Amino acid sequence: MSVESSFSHLCLEDKIPDSSIPVKSLVFKPKTAKTATPVPIVVIALQSTVTPSPLISQATGLKDPRLARDELFQSFFKCESAKAFTVGYLSNCESPFHLLIDQQLEKLKDSDVLQLNETVYITKSKLFEFLSKFESSTQSVDFTQEVSKTAAQTKKTSQAPSGATSAAIEDAKLIGITVDKSLDFPGWYQQILTKGEMLDYYDVSGCYILRPASYAIWEAIQKWFDAKIKSIGVQNAYFPMFVSSKVLEKEKDHVEGFAPEVAWVTKAGSSDLEEPVAIRPTSETVMYPYYAKWIRSYRDLPLKLNQWNSVVRWEFKHPQPFLRTREFLWQEGHTAHLTAQDAEQEVLQILDFYAGVYEELLAVPVVKGKKTEKEKFAGGAFTTTCEGYIPQTGRGIQGATSHHLGQNFSKMFNVCVENPLGPEHPKVNVFQNSWGLSTRVIGVMTMIHSDNKGLVIPPRVSQQQVVVLPVGITKKTTEEQRAHIHSSAKEVEARLKKAGVRAFGDYNDNYTPGWKFAQYELKGIPLRVESGPKDIESNQVTVVRRNDSRKVVVKLDELETRIPELLEELQADLYNKAKELFDSHRVIVDEWNDFVPKLNKKNVILSPWCGVMECEEDIKDASAKKDDGEEFEQDEKAPSMGAKSLCIPFEQPELKPGQKCVKCSRPAIQYCMFGRSY
Amino acid sequence: MSVESSFSHLCLEDKIPDSSIPVKSLVFKPKTAKTATPVPIVVIALQSTVTPSPLISQATGLKDPRLARDELFQSFFKCESAKAFTVGYLSNCESPFHLLIDQQLEKLKDSDVLQLNETVYITKSKLFEFLSKFESSTQSVDFTQEVSKTAAQTKKTSQAPSGATSAAIEDAKLIGITVDKSLDFPGWYQQILTKGEMLDYYDVSGCYILRPASYAIWEAIQKWFDAKIKSIGVQNAYFPMFVSSKVLEKEKDHVEGFAPEVAWVTKAGSSDLEEPVAIRPTSETVMYPYYAKWIRSYRDLPLKLNQWNSVVRWEFKHPQPFLRTREFLWQEGHTAHLTAQDAEQEVLQILDFYAGVYEELLAVPVVKGKKTEKEKFAGGAFTTTCEGYIPQTGRGIQGATSHHLGQNFSKMFNVCVENPLGPEHPKVNVFQNSWGLSTRVIGVMTMIHSDNKGLVIPPRVSQQQVVVLPVGITKKTTEEQRAHIHSSAKEVEARLKKAGVRAFGDYNDNYTPGWKFAQYELKGIPLRVESGPKDIESNQVTVVRRNDSRKVVVKLDELETRIPELLEELQADLYNKAKELFDSHRVIVDEWNDFVPKLNKKNVILSPWCGVMECEEDIKDASAKKDDGEEFEQDEKAPSMGAKSLCIPFEQPELKPGQKCVKCSRPAIQYCMFGRSY
Repeated sequence: MSVESSFSHLCLEDKIPDSSIPVKSLVFKPKTAKTATPVPIVVIALQSTVTPSPLISQATGLKDPRLARDELFQSFFKCESAKAFTVGYLSNCESPFHLLIDQQLEKLKDSDVLQLNETVYITKSKLFEFLSKFESSTQSVDFTQEVSKTAAQTKKTSQAPSGATSAAIEDAKLIGITVDKSLDFPGWYQQILTKGEMLDYYDVSGCYILRPASYAIWEAIQKWFDAKIKSIGVQNAYFPMFVSSKVLEKEKDHVEGFAPEVAWVTKAGSSDLEEPVAIRPTSETVMYPYYAKWIRSYRDLPLKLNQWNSVVRWEFKHPQPFLRTREFLWQEGHTAHLTAQDAEQEVLQILDFYAGVYEELLAVPVVKGKKTEKEKFAGGAFTTTCEGYIPQTGRGIQGATSHHLGQNFSKMFNVCVENPLGPEHPKVNVFQNSWGLSTRVIGVMTMIHSDNKGLVIPPRVSQQQVVVLPVGITKKTTEEQRAHIHSSAKEVEARLKKAGVRAFGDYNDNYTPGWKFAQYELKGIPLRVESGPKDIESNQVTVVRRNDSRKVVVKLDELETRIPELLEELQADLYNKAKELFDSHRVIVDEWNDFVPKLNKKNVILSPWCGVMECEEDIKDASAKKDDGEEFEQDEKAPSMGAKSLCIPFEQPELKPGQKCVKCSRPAIQYCMFGRSY
Repeated sequence: MSVESSFSHLCLEDKIPDSSIPVKSLVFKPKTAKTATPVPIVVIALQSTVTPSPLISQATGLKDPRLARDELFQSFFKCESAKAFTVGYLSNCESPFHLLIDQQLEKLKDSDVLQLNETVYITKSKLFEFLSKFESSTQSVDFTQEVSKTAAQTKKTSQAPSGATSAAIEDAKLIGITVDKSLDFPGWYQQILTKGEMLDYYDVSGCYILRPASYAIWEAIQKWFDAKIKSIGVQNAYFPMFVSSKVLEKEKDHVEGFAPEVAWVTKAGSSDLEEPVAIRPTSETVMYPYYAKWIRSYRDLPLKLNQWNSVVRWEFKHPQPFLRTREFLWQEGHTAHLTAQDAEQEVLQILDFYAGVYEELLAVPVVKGKKTEKEKFAGGAFTTTCEGYIPQTGRGIQGATSHHLGQNFSKMFNVCVENPLGPEHPKVNVFQNSWGLSTRVIGVMTMIHSDNKGLVIPPRVSQQQVVVLPVGITKKTTEEQRAHIHSSAKEVEARLKKAGVRAFGDYNDNYTPGWKFAQYELKGIPLRVESGPKDIESNQVTVVRRNDSRKVVVKLDELETRIPELLEELQADLYNKAKELFDSHRVIVDEWNDFVPKLNKKNVILSPWCGVMECEEDIKDASAKKDDGEEFEQDEKAPSMGAKSLCIPFEQPELKPGQKCVKCSRPAIQYCMFGRSY
C-alpha cells in the first residue's frame, strides 16, 4: 500500500522547515444504500478550518456524510487507515470521489509550506499541482458560510440541542476523537473504543476483539469477584461449550427465550454431524443433568459452581460493542441448595457483589431491585438486577442479574436428595440459583465516564494508572540537561512501580509532550505525572488528573503516598459525578401526565404501579413515540422506544395510602422504575 | 428412578441390626459389538469375596467383562449410578441379564442379616425370596475356584505381566479404584479421574467436564504462568472464537493441518447463515489480520499478546480425557518481533516457562528439544517442545510447544513495518512466534503420580493440601471427650489456614475415619493430619503422606513450619521418583538391532540420526508391530504403533566421530529421541 511516487517527488525532502501550516485530509462516507458503492468525499482543509458535515452534504448533494472508517481507506485508497492517509493516496483510487478544497487553503501564498502529517511537507504550489490531476472531481468550498436550511435538513438534527449543526469536534485532530459525545453518542462511543484501543471490529459481524486495555479491566473484575465468590464457598469449574439439542430443549420456557439465537454446529471438516450440536447461550441445561448425578444426599448441598467462559447468542438486532455482541465473556454461577431460604439469601449476596463491581471498581452507581414477571429470566422464579443509567441517552441499562430458579429446573432435570426427615418422606427437589456478569460492564463504564478527549478509566481497574513524562525539553536544552530530565522521570517511574502503582514512562523524543498528552488522554490513563526542569528544581512533579485536567503539585518525598491517594480521589470523584447525574435523573412521577414529558427529558421514572403485566405493556406502548418513518429506526440517536420496567427497587419511596397505579385505576402495590433502556 | 416396592417391603425397617454381613452388588458389562445390546452381568457376593473378571467370563461365556459405567445403570436399571445400585433395581430391567450369586452367600443362615448399602438391611431368606423372581437367569458361582485355562484366555493378557489374570484390585470397594494401574492402565485412568472427581464424561462425545478439583489445578497453572509471561511484557487479550472461511484458509500449509477437524457453524436459530463460520482450532488466522492493521512502525514491536481460551478440534480418533478432547482449554501466545533473533530468544524463554509448569508445579520431568521437520507446526519455521514420559505404557507424550513462525505468516497476512534503516529501504515483514499449553498437562500429571488408591496431586497445585481429621472416637468416648477431640482438630485446621495452607477438616461423625481415609486418598489430598486423644495428650498431630503412606509426627508448636515443609518434601519426592523413572527409561541405542527390543521394554530411545525425513518414516514403520487383527486396534493397552521422533533434545549425548544413523547408512548429525507416543 504505497503512495504514488509522483507525489513523493513533489514533497520537501527530509528537512523540516522552520515554519509550516498544518493541513488536514479528511475522508467522509455519505449515507448510501447497502447495495450501492459509496462515493467518498475527500476534504483538504487547513487544520484550523471547521468542516461541518451539513456543509459537506450541501456542497456534494450527498446525504449524511460521516468520517470514513479504516475499511474505506483500505478498499478505495489502498491506505491502511485514516491515520496514515494523505493526499498522496488519491492516485490509488480507481472509482469516483468528490474532492472538496478549503477556500482558506487556496488563499495561501504559493511558497507557503504545508505540513500534511508528521513527516510530510509540501509547498502550496506543489500540492495544487498534484491536486490538479483530479480537477474534474474538485470543488472549492467556503466552510465559513452558514448552512442553508435545505442542506441542514439533510442531516437529522431533531434530537440534538438546537443550534448544533454537526457533531464534529472543532479542534479534534484525526488521531483524537472527532465526534462530540453530546451530539453523536453512538459515533463517539465507537471512536472512543477503537481509537482508545479498547476494542477492534472483527470480520465476523457482531464479534469484537477485546484488546489489552479492555481485557485488563476484565481481569481486574475477575480477580475481585472471584475472590468474593470463593469466600462464600463457590468453586470454579468448566463445562463444555456444546450442548445436544435433546438436553437444550428440556426446559421449555427456558429454551423458548434462547432458541432463536442459538448457533448450531452441523459440520466437522467436510462431514455432516449425525446430530447438530448447539453452542451454549447459557449453561443451565449443560450443567443440571450432572447436578442430578452428583447430588445424592443433602450433605452434598449446597453445590456452588461458577465458570468464566464465553457464550454465544446470535443476535439479529444491531450489535453494539460490549452491550450486544454475538459472543461475549462472562461468568455464570449455578448453585443448588436444600432450602429456598438458603438459595434466596445467596441471590442477594451475589447481587451485592455485582453492585460492588459497578460501584467499587467501575465507579458506576446502580439501583438494585427485582425484575417484574415480564422481564424475569425465562424459566426462573424471580430475577434480581442492578440497573445503571447512561446520562447522554437518558436510558437505563441492565447491569447484571442474579436469578432464583426455584425448583423449576430441579424438577425438569430431577435434581433431588433424600429427605433429611428420613427415607420414608418423599425426595426433595433442590432450590437453584444462577447468576451472571458479562463484559457489558466495560461498555457501561466507558459510556459513563469517557469524554471528548477519549477514554476515562477508573484507576482501580485501569491497566495503567500513571504515565510519567519528561517535559520542558526545548531546542536550547543541552544533552546533559536532557539526560538529567529523563533520568529524573525514570526515577519517579521506578519509585511509583515499587510503591505498587501501575506506572510507565514515555521517553521517546520523537514525539512532543503535547502529542503524548493527547495520546494518553485518549487512552484514559488516570494520572499524568510531568517532570520538567522546574519540577526537578523544586523537588516535585506536576500531576494532571485525566477526568478534569486539574493540576496538582506533589512533592517528591510524598510521591509514594500522594499518588495512590490521588488515584483514590479520582476514583471517588468519578463515582460521585456519575451518582449525581443518576440521582438527579431518577424522578418520582405519580401522575401519568407527567410520565412521558419527564421521560423525554432523559430521566428514568419511579412510579407507583399495580404490578399487572398488561399495565406494564400499556405503559410501554403509551410512552413510545409513534412510528414516523425513517426517524423510528434510529433507536441509537432517538430513543423513540417506550419505557420498559427496569426494576422494582429494593429501596422504595413511601407509598401514599390509597395511591393508584400511575397508568391504570388499580391500586399501586409498589414503586417501579421505568425507563427507555438498552 | 425408584426401587420396586416389592423389594422395599422385604427389607428391615429403620432399625439398624446389631450385627450384619456386608454384601455387594456389582454389575459388569461384557465386551459387545457396538451395534449389539449388551447383556449385563449382575454379581451378588459377600463384600469379602473376590470376584475376578475371568471367572465371571467363564461362568457366563461372555468376553472381557468390566465394571459397568453409570450410563449402563441408568439405561438398564433406571438407577442413577453404581453407587446407588442395590438388588432392588433388578425389577426395573426390561432386557435379559445374567445374575451370578456367590456360593459363600448361599451358605449363610436364613436368619442372617445382610447389609446391602448404608441404609438397606435384609435377611438372607428375604433376599433369596426376592432373587427367586429372576431364577431363569441365575447362576450360582464358586468364586474360590481357579480359573480354567480356557476362560483365562478369553481375557487378553499378552501385554500384562505373566501370572496376572485380572486387573481387578482384590480389596477395592466399589467406592474406590477397582482396576490395577499396572494391569489395565486405560481403565484405571478413567476410574481415577471420575471417582477422584476430577472430571466427568459429557453427553457430547469427546467433551468432558472439568470439575473443581481439576479446574483448580488449571487455575494454579494460570496464576503461575500468567505472571511469568507478564514479566516479559506479554499482555492478555481476547479474540472471537469464530473465523470466516476466507481468513482461515489464507495460509495453506497451516489450514491443511487443521481443516479435517474444524467445526462449522452453519445455522443460527432456524436460519442458515449466509457464510458458515469456523470455530477456531487455534488463532493464528484469527489474530494476524489485526496484527497487520495495528503494527505500523518498528516502535509498535514487539507486540506480545496471549489469550486464555478454549479451542475446538473435532477429532475423529478415540478421545481421551485431557489428552485428546474435542474442546480444550489452553493459552495461546502470539508475538511479533522486528528481528528473528529477538523472536527466537522468546521461543526458548517460553519453553523454559512450560518446562517450569511441568517440573516446578506438576512435579513432572520433561526433556526439552526441537521437533523434526516432519513433526513441526504446520506453516511455522521450527517448533520447540517439552516431552514427558508415561512409565506404565512406556510412551512419550508431547507436553507443550513453542513455535517460531519465521516470516511465513507475516508475509501471508502482510504484517510489516517501515524499515528502521529508512523509508527508502523496503518494508520489513515481522518475525512471529506462537506458543500454547493446554489442560493436557493435567492428564500427564495424573497418569504419572496417581496410584491404585486414587489420585496423587502435587501440593503446589492441589485445590486442597491438607485434610484434618479427628480420630480415636469410639463407643466408649464420652460426649465431652468427643467435643474436645473435635475442637482440637478444628484448632489445627484454623492454624493451618492462617499459615496459608489450603486445609479443611471433616467432622462428620456418620463416617468412620477409615472411610474418610479412603475418600481423601481417592481424591489425592497430599497430607492427612490426624488428631486423636493420644495426639492431643502429646501435643502433636500424626501426619500421613498421600504418596507413600509414611507417617510423620509433628509437634503442635511446629505445625506452621513443618506442614509447609512436609508439603514441599512431598512435592520434591514426587518429582524425584518420576525423574528416576524417566531417566532410567531413556536409553541410548546406537545399533538398530537394539532399537525395537529396547522400545518394547517401555523405553524411549536416544539414537544417532541423519535428520532425513524418509529415514524418520522408515524408523516408524520398522518399529511398529504388524497388524495381527484385533490386537492391533488396542492401541491403549498394546502400544503397537511405531516409534515417532519425539524431539531432538537440546541436551545431546556426544556424537562419536564417523557415527552413522541408527537406521540408515547416512552420517548421524545429532541424537534424536524416539518413542511410541500419545
